[in-house]
This record gives sequence, C-alpha cells and structure tokens, in this order.
Amino acid sequence: MSEPSVQDVADWWATAVSRVEPDVIELRGRPIQELIGTTSFVGVIWLLLRGAPPTPGQQRLLEAALVSSVDHGPHAPSIAIARMAVTCGIGINGAIASGVNTLGDVHGGAGEQCMEMLAEVGRRAAGGTGIDDAAAAVVAGWRDHVRYLPGFGHRFHSVDPRREPLLSLVRESVAAGVVDGAYLRAAEAVERNLATGRSRPVPINVDGLTAVVYGELGFPPPLARGLFVLSRSVGILAHAWEEAGQGRRNKGPIPPSILPTYGGPS
Amino acid sequence: MSEPSVQDVADWWATAVSRVEPDVIELRGRPIQELIGTTSFVGVIWLLLRGAPPTPGQQRLLEAALVSSVDHGPHAPSIAIARMAVTCGIGINGAIASGVNTLGDVHGGAGEQCMEMLAEVGRRAAGGTGIDDAAAAVVAGWRDHVRYLPGFGHRFHSVDPRREPLLSLVRESVAAGVVDGAYLRAAEAVERNLATGRSRPVPINVDGLTAVVYGELGFPPPLARGLFVLSRSVGILAHAWEEAGQGRRNKGPIPPSILPTYGGPS
Amino acid sequence: MSEPSVQDVADWWATAVSRVEPDVIELRGRPIQELIGTTSFVGVIWLLLRGAPPTPGQQRLLEAALVSSVDHGPHAPSIAIARMAVTCGIGINGAIASGVNTLGDVHGGAGEQCMEMLAEVGRRAAGGTGIDDAAAAVVAGWRDHVRYLPGFGHRFHSVDPRREPLLSLVRESVAAGVVDGAYLRAAEAVERNLATGRSRPVPINVDGLTAVVYGELGFPPPLARGLFVLSRSVGILAHAWEEAGQGRRNKGPIPPSILPTYGGPS
Amino acid sequence: MSEPSVQDVADWWATAVSRVEPDVIELRGRPIQELIGTTSFVGVIWLLLRGAPPTPGQQRLLEAALVSSVDHGPHAPSIAIARMAVTCGIGINGAIASGVNTLGDVHGGAGEQCMEMLAEVGRRAAGGTGIDDAAAAVVAGWRDHVRYLPGFGHRFHSVDPRREPLLSLVRESVAAGVVDGAYLRAAEAVERNLATGRSRPVPINVDGLTAVVYGELGFPPPLARGLFVLSRSVGILAHAWEEAGQGRRNKGPIPPSILPTYGGPS
Repeated sequence: MSEPSVQDVADWWATAVSRVEPDVIELRGRPIQELIGTTSFVGVIWLLLRGAPPTPGQQRLLEAALVSSVDHGPHAPSIAIARMAVTCGIGINGAIASGVNTLGDVHGGAGEQCMEMLAEVGRRAAGGTGIDDAAAAVVAGWRDHVRYLPGFGHRFHSVDPRREPLLSLVRESVAAGVVDGAYLRAAEAVERNLATGRSRPVPINVDGLTAVVYGELGFPPPLARGLFVLSRSVGILAHAWEEAGQGRRNKGPIPPSILPTYGGPS
Repeated sequence: MSEPSVQDVADWWATAVSRVEPDVIELRGRPIQELIGTTSFVGVIWLLLRGAPPTPGQQRLLEAALVSSVDHGPHAPSIAIARMAVTCGIGINGAIASGVNTLGDVHGGAGEQCMEMLAEVGRRAAGGTGIDDAAAAVVAGWRDHVRYLPGFGHRFHSVDPRREPLLSLVRESVAAGVVDGAYLRAAEAVERNLATGRSRPVPINVDGLTAVVYGELGFPPPLARGLFVLSRSVGILAHAWEEAGQGRRNKGPIPPSILPTYGGPS
Repeated sequence: MSEPSVQDVADWWATAVSRVEPDVIELRGRPIQELIGTTSFVGVIWLLLRGAPPTPGQQRLLEAALVSSVDHGPHAPSIAIARMAVTCGIGINGAIASGVNTLGDVHGGAGEQCMEMLAEVGRRAAGGTGIDDAAAAVVAGWRDHVRYLPGFGHRFHSVDPRREPLLSLVRESVAAGVVDGAYLRAAEAVERNLATGRSRPVPINVDGLTAVVYGELGFPPPLARGLFVLSRSVGILAHAWEEAGQGRRNKGPIPPSILPTYGGPS
Repeated sequence: MSEPSVQDVADWWATAVSRVEPDVIELRGRPIQELIGTTSFVGVIWLLLRGAPPTPGQQRLLEAALVSSVDHGPHAPSIAIARMAVTCGIGINGAIASGVNTLGDVHGGAGEQCMEMLAEVGRRAAGGTGIDDAAAAVVAGWRDHVRYLPGFGHRFHSVDPRREPLLSLVRESVAAGVVDGAYLRAAEAVERNLATGRSRPVPINVDGLTAVVYGELGFPPPLARGLFVLSRSVGILAHAWEEAGQGRRNKGPIPPSILPTYGGPS
C-alpha cells in the first residue's frame, strides 16, 4: 500500500451533490444564492436528488405525493414514538430522529417494495405479455413469499381516502404527456387482479399510489422510502411539537393507572 | 385514583393535528383528498404546524428559508454521519435518523437561539429603547454566557452566500406588508453592533437569517430547529443516497491507511 | 493557515482509549488478548472509562448500580419505544438506538443532576456548614428552579424497592473503606430534609442511589447518564427481543380498535 | 369487532420480562432487591434474556465475548459517529444512540450471520456428513450469494488478536462440559476449508468467535447482534466521553482545512 496523501483524504469525501468552499455554496453546480427565492423547496428536493430541476408537471406530481403521506395519526409508531420522545428531555431533532428511525422495511418500506413489484409487472408487459396476465403472474409470485402485498389494502381504510385524488392526478399527468403511464397501468392491473372473484376488493393504498408517482417520475425504489421519510417528518414534527406544548414528562404508551399484563413467573 | 377507562386511553393520545378514522384522514380539519393536488408540500408544512394555510407571501418566505439550509457538504456532521451510516447495512431511514439526531443545540440550535436573542432586542426596542442601544445591551448580555453569538459569523465563510438573497427577500416582504420587520430590524442592529470598531465584521449567517424569517412569520423558536431539521433532511438524503451508490462497506471517517494518533499508555 | 498534512488527519482522530493497528488491539494500553477471559465485562467498562482496572470493592458497587436500572417495564418510554420500533422492520440495533435516544435530561438525566446536587451539599459541608444545614440550603436553592428534585420520590413507588439494597451496599462499602461516604451523607441529609414536617416523606429513589454510587466511585456526573444508558440497554434489548417474537407489525401505542380523541376543527 | 376494554389495553403491553407495580419490581419473577448486590451485571443480562440465571461456566464465556467487542477504534463508524455526535450539542445518550444505530447488517450483523452459517454446518454434520464436507458445502453455498464470508478474515488484521484467547476459552469450556462444542467444530472446519490450497488463510475473526460463543451458549442468532450492541456501547461511551472532554464543536470527519473533492457540474 502506498503512502496516504491529503488528496486521498479529500477524495474519501468526494461528492457531486454540493460544493462548499469559503464563500461558495453550490448545489448540483448551481450557486445557492440563485436558488433562494426563485426555487421552491420541492424543486430543490428534486434538484439535489436528480441533478437538475423538475418540469412544472413533474413538480406537481412530487408535491402531491409528498403531501399525501405527512401524517397518519398517533397509531403510527413513527408519530407515537416522536410524541413520547419529546417528553423525555431531548431536543426536537432527537424526537424527529426517533420517529424517522422506525420507518423501516415494514413501516416505511411498502412504497419501495411496491415500486419493485410494479416494475416487474411492467417488464413482463414490455416483453409482450398482456398487462393483466403480467399482473396475475407477478402477484402470484409475490404471494409466495410475502404476507401482505405492498401498496394494496389497508388495515384501517376499506378504500384509502388518498387513492382517488392521487389516481386522478397521475391519469391527468399521463394524458398530458408528463409521464408515460407504465407504473399506473401496472398498478391498475394489480388492483383488477385483486378484485377478481373476491368478496372484498383490495384497492391500491397510499404506498402503492406514491410508488406509482415516484416510479412514473423516474426515482429508483430506495428513494421512495427516502421521500416518504421527508414527507412523514412533517407530521412527526407537528405531533412532537403539539405534545411538547402539553408539558407531560416521560409519557408512556398508556395511562400510568393501567398496569401491563404480567405473563412471567410468579 | 378512580378506575381507568377506555376513554382515558383515547384521551391519552388526544390530538388536534389530524383525525384518522376508517376511511377518513383529516389534517387540521381538512380532508386530505382536498389537499392532494391543490396544496403544495410547503403549504401543508405550514398547515400542520399552524392550523391554517399560509398566504402566498408567507409561503414564499418559508420556501426560501427551507431551501437555504438543505446542505452544507460533508464537513457538516449531520451529512458525514448519514453517509457513514448508510454503508453499515441499515435502511435509508436509519441513515437519515442518524444525521438528524445530531442537529442538537450546537449543530442545529443556532436559529432557535438567535430567534430568542432577536426577540429580546425587539422587546427592548418596543419598550422605548433605541434599536441600536437595545442590540448593544442584548449582545453584551449574551456575550457573558456564550462563546459564539448564535446566527452571526461563520467558520467557513467571511460572508455567508445565503445572506444577500435572504436579506433581500425579507426586506421585500416587509415593504409589501407581508411581515412587519421587527426581527429584521433587530438582526440589522445586531449586525451593525458587531461591525462597529472591529477590524473584521461578523455578518449575519444563514442561521440568523432563517431565524429572522421564522420570527417574522410568527413561528416560536423551537420550530426554527424543527424547520431546519426538515430542510437539512433533504441534503442528508441526497448525500446518503450518493454514498449508497458507491458501494463502500463500513465507511470510516478517514481512509483506512491512516491510523489515528494514539495518545494513551504504552 | 498552513497546508494540512496527513499527520493533521491522524491527529484529528487522536485517542487514548484504544490503539488499533494491524494485528494489535490495546484498550488503555492493555493488549485485548490479556483481558479476554481474565477480566469481567464490568471490569472492562471501568477500565475504558477510567484508564485502569477497578478494585474488587469498586467493581462490586458498579455491578450493583448497573443491575439496578436495567428495566422499569413498558411504561418507561425507552422500553415501549424499543418494543414498537422492532415491529417496524428495523434491526435490533435500530430498536435499541431508538430507546436509548430517549434517555434525555428528563428520562435519563436524574442521576446526573442528583450527583451535581449532592456534590453541592458536599462542598458546603466541606466548607464547615453542618450537613443538614447544607442539605436544607441546597434543597431550597434547587426548589427555586426545578419542579422535581432529581433522585428523590417516585411516581410509581412510595418507597423504591431498590433503595434498601443499594443503601446497605454503600454503607457497607463506606464501613470497609472502599469509598469515603461524602455522597452517601449528602443523600441521607437531603432525605432527612424531605421527611421533616411532611405528612409524606420523599425517599431517595434509584436515580439518587446510583448517583451516590457513581459519585462515591469518582465518576463525573455526565457518566452517571452514560452508565445508566449501558444498564437500561439491557432491559431495552430484552423487551425488544420479546416483542420481536410476537410477530406484530407496526405496533402502535394502543390497540387499533381505540381511536385517539380528536380535539381539532371539524 | 367487539368493544375494546381496559384489559385489552393492559394485554397490548403484556410482558414476561418484568413486573413493575407500586413498590414492586421483579425481573423474570425475581424481586430486584434480591438481585442487587448478589448478582453481577452479566448475570442479569443473561437472566433477562434467558429467563433464569447462568451457571458460572456459562457466565465466564459470556463475560469474555462481551469484553472482546467493546472497541475497535475511530475507524469503526459506530465509534466515529458517536464522537462526532457528542460535539453537536446532544446528550451522551443521543451520541450513544447515533453510534448504536449504525450496527446494522454490515457493521453489526456478521456475528448473527456467522451463527446461521455455523448452524447450517452443524445440521449437515448432525445428518451424517463429515464435518469438513459439511463445511465445504456450506461455504460454497454462501459464496454464491455473499461477497465476504461472515466471521472470517479481517480487513485490518492478518490474524485477529482476539482469536487465540476466545478459541482457548471455548475449547476449555467444551473440555469441561460447559458447552457441547458443535459451533466450535463447525467454525474450525470452516477455517480449515478456508486455509486449504490458498496462499493466504482466512482465519476466524472476533465476529466468528463470538458467534461460536453465543451459539454454544444457546442464544438465537439475532441476539448475537443484540449482545454485540451491549458490548460495543461501552467503547462508544468511552470514546464519546473522551471527545466531549476536548471541547470541539460540530466535529466533521476531516480537518476543516481539507476540502472534500468536488465531482459535480461546474
């Protein structure tokens, strides 16, 4: 191994996201002073992740997807955890981190997994299989190894209230030529498959619809989770802040007057 | 203590942020299906934190402040930590959480602290003291107990490149009657104070200017940190994602060929 | 500023805790192969934090303090959060981190704060004030700025069941000359002060008693929190692991059949 | 769905780890006052995870495994991150959490994965295959889907200095009948396999040897990671505390005088 140099150290932290030097901050090659006041927050989210700004049609879709996942109430572990954490004497950053940390494969991964599933349907369809046959084959394959199909059905909602507005928006965007519709068609085909011959359909949910949006916009699947984190952080912050205003200390999950059932040796 | 009831349990998690019931999601009283596609992401950030939507002038200021703090390169611990974390085999949510978690009093608290300092200047000025005398008194008071005045000066930049565009925007907003200018006047007075009789001025930095924006917009100081978290999460995500694409495993802070200096017993 | 060198980089990460070089691992100057199998885990905790091994009497006290805080059931936010987190599809390391993260000033800081309070009593007593007068003065001073005196009283227990065994152990250790007893005397004086003229005494609790132990052993106050983290991590792990075995997904704080009370606009 | 009851809420948090009621704390059915002063910290770790206390021979092995992983210097992301985090104005709990959070599949999962691999060798051998043939088959199978065989080889050490003492200890324990040796034999067979016909052997490392210990002791694989977290938390704490004493603010990964290489658009 040759002697290490200062250049090796600089290279160890090489990045194309931003240039930060004395009196210079550039994001993806653009001076930050040209972005402030001219570019929206969501425009900069897109710029940092993709390297260039979005078109207005792309931005509109991204705004809608980010809006749709901000909050799902205190039953969501990410929300409850942040509320509890903020009563424990840590900063609001720590409370947000505690909530965000739980957006793992189960709590935050459905969008990412659904994108992969829909991409698989799309690849089969592109290979000449009819879209409904492609969906049937992919659903059958996933059923073999997962308990819940990611992006479809909801334990709270019979039909997710976010389904209709997101679906309309994507359909409009396809009609306007903003996106090409491959993920939309795949999702619709899976939804049809899950309604066939069943007493109770399993409609696409918010994770599935944001997967459609992110897929249509060309984001890779792991960024579906990354974008969900940005979105849910808003609800986490709002709930943590509300809780902080109530002055509780060390808030547990249930009122202190209820003792957890003890199931151990006596 | 009376017997606990199911109602006590429901009340333990009472919230005014959102209502989530079967087939219903409302944010601050608004059905989410009416927000998706019609309201921007930043509009929903404001709605969740404040209870009602922003005016266009308010939203423009909030967009600009959120844009300005997204990234400051791998020298920022929040960015470096997320890049290192994502090489350790945790999800992108965990990497973001690791970065966000470090936005504490020192790394993420300057905006919050600066808002408190500027509010103090404003209260003195509102009490009849001239704004420059108020600033001088407050600066002297803070100097007694802090090493660095929050929101002023920068270890990298002689003048923070984000100063000019944010300052212009706030001045325009005051001129247009969007905000009243009390935080702006306080910040300008502190900046003047820090330039007087010094060989090297200590201009207001991005934390100070976002403190001005958040103060003008009526956010309480702890939300300056909360909003900074939302902003910086974007850069954290972009850097973590770039790092993930490079395939390193267990990335340490310096190249493995350089051994940390050992200063212990031999 | 002179040119940076590779030596500057090595120095940036200088440490006296451990030397790690190819085929060498030393902890505080001791080859790790000499520690494995000969030194207990608690002995190594002491070694790493203090630079040299404990005496058997010191180790016995540290073992007891670490044992006493391992768990306080699912009402403790640290425990509940870890249980919820592990159902969200993150690794057990992430679940433990989520719990540990909440051991902040309120949830994990009482021991640290109590050490500072008792040290203050000790300093006054060392200056010639009688111990009871010293305790009275310090208690009165703290009462002015805190709602709960750290280390005394408990919301669950009238007398903390960990009080008696820890107190006996410290008294024995003083009698045996292992420690000098200054923290013990200060704590007893505060306890007497809080029993005087009251219908209900406010006995010292586990945080107060571990503060006594850590103080007697010469640890600085912030390490009281650090050691509490090591201790509570054990209960956090045990609970996270039990929860993982139950197969829940996205466990919220209350059963899904109970809706949080909604207090917002309708 | 029937009406929820307070009993459902108590059951939602049911646990067999501990009973905490007014004036009562029991761990796995044992009053905590009987454990304090009589049981070592490692004894209580075992008790909480396994439900009953260890024998002295079991405890000795567990102590050794916990000692062996406490620290690997600032090149380890878990250590570096905690050191950086503590300079950002968060509590020591938050710094530890930031470090622990990164002990994911890559940084903290090798022990767990190695246990699974060795168990597979053991099952084949138990089925009648010779141990070396079993190891060869399993190694070949794992090679197909992983880049690095978990628990073998080390990027820093040609022979891990923790190999010899841990190996001796396990061999002694097998000879003494404390454990049966199935994991040891599997690990030795894999090591032989990796030395055959190679210019450079790939000896078992600390993750592999702790996997052997935890496997011999009957812990399930995910607890290998959980126990590694408890162990590494000690080094994380010691390093964070050392760093805190140096007074840096917002410590980045490299000295501020070295700018990261910029690789983006200009």
